[in-house]
Amino acid sequence: MRFKFSIIALLLEVVFIILFGLFVEHDTGNTSLYPYFKDVHVMIFIGFGFLMTFLKKYGFTSVGINMLIAAFGLQWGTLMQGFLHRGEGGKIPLNIKSMINADFSTATALISFGAVLGKTNPVQMLLLTFLEITAFAVNEYLVTEIFQATDIGASMTIHAFGAYFGLAVTLILYRPGLKNKHANEESSYHSDIFAMIGTLFLWLFWPSFNSAIAAENDQTKTIINTYYSLAACAVITFALSSLLDQRGKFSMVLIQNATLAGGVAVGTCADLTIDPFVAMCIGSIAGIISVLGFRFLTPVLASKLKIQDTCGVHNLHGLPGILGGIASIVVTATQPETKKGIQLTAGKQASALGSTIGIALLGGALTGAILRLPIWGQVSDQNCFDDSAYWEVPEEEKLPEINSNNYDEHSRFEAIM
Amino acid sequence: MRFKFSIIALLLEVVFIILFGLFVEHDTGNTSLYPYFKDVHVMIFIGFGFLMTFLKKYGFTSVGINMLIAAFGLQWGTLMQGFLHRGEGGKIPLNIKSMINADFSTATALISFGAVLGKTNPVQMLLLTFLEITAFAVNEYLVTEIFQATDIGASMTIHAFGAYFGLAVTLILYRPGLKNKHANEESSYHSDIFAMIGTLFLWLFWPSFNSAIAAENDQTKTIINTYYSLAACAVITFALSSLLDQRGKFSMVLIQNATLAGGVAVGTCADLTIDPFVAMCIGSIAGIISVLGFRFLTPVLASKLKIQDTCGVHNLHGLPGILGGIASIVVTATQPETKKGIQLTAGKQASALGSTIGIALLGGALTGAILRLPIWGQVSDQNCFDDSAYWEVPEEEKLPEINSNNYDEHSRFEAIM
Amino acid sequence: MRFKFSIIALLLEVVFIILFGLFVEHDTGNTSLYPYFKDVHVMIFIGFGFLMTFLKKYGFTSVGINMLIAAFGLQWGTLMQGFLHRGEGGKIPLNIKSMINADFSTATALISFGAVLGKTNPVQMLLLTFLEITAFAVNEYLVTEIFQATDIGASMTIHAFGAYFGLAVTLILYRPGLKNKHANEESSYHSDIFAMIGTLFLWLFWPSFNSAIAAENDQTKTIINTYYSLAACAVITFALSSLLDQRGKFSMVLIQNATLAGGVAVGTCADLTIDPFVAMCIGSIAGIISVLGFRFLTPVLASKLKIQDTCGVHNLHGLPGILGGIASIVVTATQPETKKGIQLTAGKQASALGSTIGIALLGGALTGAILRLPIWGQVSDQNCFDDSAYWEVPEEEKLPEINSNNYDEHSRFEAIM
Repeated sequence: MRFKFSIIALLLEVVFIILFGLFVEHDTGNTSLYPYFKDVHVMIFIGFGFLMTFLKKYGFTSVGINMLIAAFGLQWGTLMQGFLHRGEGGKIPLNIKSMINADFSTATALISFGAVLGKTNPVQMLLLTFLEITAFAVNEYLVTEIFQATDIGASMTIHAFGAYFGLAVTLILYRPGLKNKHANEESSYHSDIFAMIGTLFLWLFWPSFNSAIAAENDQTKTIINTYYSLAACAVITFALSSLLDQRGKFSMVLIQNATLAGGVAVGTCADLTIDPFVAMCIGSIAGIISVLGFRFLTPVLASKLKIQDTCGVHNLHGLPGILGGIASIVVTATQPETKKGIQLTAGKQASALGSTIGIALLGGALTGAILRLPIWGQVSDQNCFDDSAYWEVPEEEKLPEINSNNYDEHSRFEAIM
Repeated sequence: MRFKFSIIALLLEVVFIILFGLFVEHDTGNTSLYPYFKDVHVMIFIGFGFLMTFLKKYGFTSVGINMLIAAFGLQWGTLMQGFLHRGEGGKIPLNIKSMINADFSTATALISFGAVLGKTNPVQMLLLTFLEITAFAVNEYLVTEIFQATDIGASMTIHAFGAYFGLAVTLILYRPGLKNKHANEESSYHSDIFAMIGTLFLWLFWPSFNSAIAAENDQTKTIINTYYSLAACAVITFALSSLLDQRGKFSMVLIQNATLAGGVAVGTCADLTIDPFVAMCIGSIAGIISVLGFRFLTPVLASKLKIQDTCGVHNLHGLPGILGGIASIVVTATQPETKKGIQLTAGKQASALGSTIGIALLGGALTGAILRLPIWGQVSDQNCFDDSAYWEVPEEEKLPEINSNNYDEHSRFEAIM
Repeated sequence: MRFKFSIIALLLEVVFIILFGLFVEHDTGNTSLYPYFKDVHVMIFIGFGFLMTFLKKYGFTSVGINMLIAAFGLQWGTLMQGFLHRGEGGKIPLNIKSMINADFSTATALISFGAVLGKTNPVQMLLLTFLEITAFAVNEYLVTEIFQATDIGASMTIHAFGAYFGLAVTLILYRPGLKNKHANEESSYHSDIFAMIGTLFLWLFWPSFNSAIAAENDQTKTIINTYYSLAACAVITFALSSLLDQRGKFSMVLIQNATLAGGVAVGTCADLTIDPFVAMCIGSIAGIISVLGFRFLTPVLASKLKIQDTCGVHNLHGLPGILGGIASIVVTATQPETKKGIQLTAGKQASALGSTIGIALLGGALTGAILRLPIWGQVSDQNCFDDSAYWEVPEEEKLPEINSNNYDEHSRFEAIM
């Protein structure tokens, strides 16, 4: 991996710099959106990064490769979106809004990263990021410019897209050797607390995510709808988490993930004319769907459909993203509304949802086929979910391997990780 | 707990959604307060949540139930404050300011949570949140509308209120079995560092907390007074922490908590006409009081008065909150000033302080009596301060219990936790 | 240390309060810069604090003494900068911009703290903070008022200054006993993840750091240049980290630190007329320099030049800071530009760089000589990099010392820390 990764990364970075030199320039523009950008920025790097640190031996990769994907992807996202939206061949203008969109584009790759977490190497993740952001930009262009649909919080274009793209990739990369639960695919006490840092920063700044590029006079409404959707979703998640456990105990997996489904699901409708209680209903349904998905659907997908979804992105981003799209179909069907001078219709929203799922599945399958090529080097099943395959890890981590035939040492190791 | 908790939570959430449907609507309004809201939001969920993760085996509950209380409480806070302030029966308008107030209202329950931390179950905490926010909204209405006192940073109405409410609850819930220090009531090396995440985000955003709903031309002054009060308080806390230790060592408990007392104490006066050095004096006195409280008062309260205050909220919120109220009495007595066209007086401030303490103690005692009912299920003394009573906890945590008659395993356990 | 530390800290705090009473007053002014202040504030307390928690046994000191230095230093920084800039003897006016500058001034001491981390006591750190901020304020005055140079992101006046000041101090405090790697000078798995909290918040808010005091119509450009410089730097760092490792593995030290070099290096030029790809080139070069510095230069400095730089601040702040200065010389030499009505020239920039390095080295050497006085109490080599010298540490940490002649216990200890 030494030369493959570094040469590909250096090469692509040089290409990015050259493309920026040729096609990109500073825009004039104010900083009024900067506070929204910063929140999205925190969500991408801290939120997604720490959310995935829940695995006991995979924290370096979760937070580190998350950073790599995002730093790499935001450059490519700037270029791709710039090329598609720039009009008749002028230069790509950079302003705070384009930075928000660049960060947004990386979210798709980070969601897909959650689906394949622990099973791919950094070279594969660079390629996935490059390919997925390309597909995302095309779909986003179709949805907004061709179908003229609305998706202000990107329930469809980011969340559903990232989830189904990632699910298609992980299906193609199916590993029969991981059919039985891998010993490393577990959390530890402190890794679960690290993950809550990610959960909370995502939860807290989701109102900014959904309202960042909303029209100025829609922002307050968008913020409020997201805030109450998330609040209702969190309470529902706690209730169902206890209800579905035999002893009534809460599950950290559900609290870390399903509490966020309300932010995903309300995204498409957040700036439409809906009352706060409607947002709360959407959030509640999202919580129910997400909890049920984690509890009943993920195991079935893994065992029957060969879809190994490490973080359960289908339940956090996939199903709630579709719910967001469906909600927008219902809302636009029942009350006429215009955005940016364009009449919204249920048909446009349905087209957007269909395009998103279709391009995501197709793009993900193609990407999975490319990532499967032996040239990139596949991590062995045994070394899955283990940072030490790609990182220098402090000594403590290596002790057990040396003494792995020693029960005492082994149990200590498990306790520490 | 399985059905009790989930049914109560689901039921109350459904009631909230219905009440929102009947009584709540979007307000028009701009987003100028949104940056302040976000800081308060971070303080509530990250600040309070992580501050309480200091216990070695109670991190899931601290950060998780903190989230539940806040997500649940902000909905009830919106309704209660809306009903009381809405004038003659119109709908409750939602805007950024009402979101700030909703978050504020949850702070009271989170402060009380600190007093009973480790000794109550999630059902009890839902009830406490519901009852305390009701009492808070009544007192806040009295203080601002009837007594017409000022309390911009809520030293009295949030901090002192939450502390004395919680102390009254914990007094009623007194557990003689915890008279001797519980083995779980300790921090670990990493849990103390997790707690510093909470401390620092509280410390950093306290200027926003105090200035969030200040008049626009008072905001800079309020921010600056809070900033320097906290800075002075932090230095004083480090100095006294070392001075009071026989070997001159710092105590994490003090650094995590007493450094924040300056933010609490300067709250009421932060937007009044005081010089920066006065804010620094208030912060310094708050630091002194808080350190002395932790060192000398908390042990006495526990042993003599049967008040078991897990996090020492009396020293962080109670005493500094009273100090804030007294400071406002002195300031308004010595220089006449008006806010929102109303003449401030020492008498109004004293009434506010008295009302706050009185309603908090009474409300807390009643709430404690309700929480004591056997129907809610009390956690046994032995299972106090232990997440595994209410959470699925990763395997490592259970090892020692299995092997608890084995010294070697036991010492390992202590070392890890 | 008990009385020395507490008396000095209390005394200086009292002096600060008196000086504030005599010389400081509230300014009128708006809160438009407050969002920038908050980001800088997070960088100072969370960013720097957690970045240094990477050591396995030194997390309390890293995040705690970081807080002490910053809370203490911001008061002295307010006074020093106020005295130098206030004009003809009026009072020092406090506004949001002066708070930003106060936070900025503490950054120099925190950078130097990184150089001496683990080897000094809290008394020494108070003195270092006091002396360094004094020297910083003088140099900052020279650079901006006398040489009339530009340094909007403070590549020179903060980063290079803090680094070379700290290197001079650590040279004077050279400990031959630490020539061989100290057993405590290592990270643990979780301490490395804690450190990533610091890295990411620094990385995320660096655009605010560089643009906080920029002219309003330069802010967007400054933000964008910093954003893309950091993105390019991060990708380059990952690539080189893998390339330089024999097995192609990433190094946490490099990811935690060198990814930030792009923010440092682009600082001086970020508000000048440069295209985005130029910012990316500066960021890329900074990443290269920083990685090479960590890999090859730091060991040489320690072994040959007796400069023991614990955190490698030379590679993160020193070299990239000089790069920033040189870049500004090149940019101002190749295209004429004015800031605040003053013509920028290569000569002015070069003078600023020279002054900064000179005053830093001289001030650091003098400070080192003062800190070396036996009166302050030096920590023994053996107790270096160990919190328990200055903090009450939870029991777990002490076990190994009791049983240090027992191999089994000892290995457990290493595993846990």
